[in-house]
Amino acid sequence: MRYEIRLAGSGGQGLILAGVILAEAAGLHEGKFVCQTQSYGPAARGGASMTEVVISDAEIDYPKALHPDVLLAMNQQSLEAYVVDLQPGGLLLVDATLVREIPDHHRVFAIPFTEIAREQVGQVMTANIVALGALALLTGAVTMESLKTAVLARVPPGTAELNQKALAAGVEAAKQLMKDVGEMAPQEEIEP
Amino acid sequence: MRYEIRLAGSGGQGLILAGVILAEAAGLHEGKFVCQTQSYGPAARGGASMTEVVISDAEIDYPKALHPDVLLAMNQQSLEAYVVDLQPGGLLLVDATLVREIPDHHRVFAIPFTEIAREQVGQVMTANIVALGALALLTGAVTMESLKTAVLARVPPGTAELNQKALAAGVEAAKQLMKDVGEMAPQEEIEP
Repeated sequence: MRYEIRLAGSGGQGLILAGVILAEAAGLHEGKFVCQTQSYGPAARGGASMTEVVISDAEIDYPKALHPDVLLAMNQQSLEAYVVDLQPGGLLLVDATLVREIPDHHRVFAIPFTEIAREQVGQVMTANIVALGALALLTGAVTMESLKTAVLARVPPGTAELNQKALAAGVEAAKQLMKDVGEMAPQEEIEP
Repeated sequence: MRYEIRLAGSGGQGLILAGVILAEAAGLHEGKFVCQTQSYGPAARGGASMTEVVISDAEIDYPKALHPDVLLAMNQQSLEAYVVDLQPGGLLLVDATLVREIPDHHRVFAIPFTEIAREQVGQVMTANIVALGALALLTGAVTMESLKTAVLARVPPGTAELNQKALAAGVEAAKQLMKDVGEMAPQEEIEP
């Protein structure tokens, strides 16, 4: 059982930190085999940022994502760059604040992570954590408890409360979306 | 030209951040192809932390280190776990504060990173940055300018001065060591 998650956006959106948190949630707190990769090449010079987290019950041979089960696209450019690799049945999760043109894909969820971070959490920099909360709820890739532990271990001193608020806001937004579309989330009953 | 660096130690030593910084120095500021990987498995549950940075002039097929050119071992356990994989001509860099038994290896440098961080920098948490300064000087894997830019982009707000001091202290310690052994460092003349 191999599960591939790709997080992509621009350099300032905290996606590498989000990847580290997700990898540690699964790897340190759930005992899974996890590889997390950041790759830099000519694309990185354009200010793009991308990280991949591969989670498995068994040892991981190839650490990079081949056909992600999940793509989190935090801006238009990253959506366009990476949506082609997504599994046909994979989940596309986009920041509706920054992604205006969403391609036709049968499992797409658009949540305004940046707007939620700015308006509800009060700190735009927490959009990555808002997105992680939604991603965990929608995919069940990690439990909310592991995720919360991993978030609190990694965020800067003094920002624990803010980041818990961000996580909860992401979960809430995803729950609301699930309700709207009539789907049952893997972790609907678990509070962060 | 493929260059592999492995950073290993315990969970609280900031090695993943050090890996992110090193990868960004080469990938964002020097235009190299870089893959940085963190892997978690049964070993991670024992509190061990390990990250690999592969730097290349060409696209990287396999993102993990096969036979590292450099191993930075920040504690005894990680030294013992990983020294066997090191290239025969590779560089072994150890934290002399925490590593007591150094194996027989023809290119080994022992610098008390933790002690320098605590005594000279005044903050033990900066041992990872002290080590990065020494590693860059001893290997020339990244320039001091790229490294400094990458450090300042990643460390917590308000700690820029502290981390610059840590970087400089690591460079200075490595220079002193080179002088003692009569070797010429790749970046001896470059100030951080």
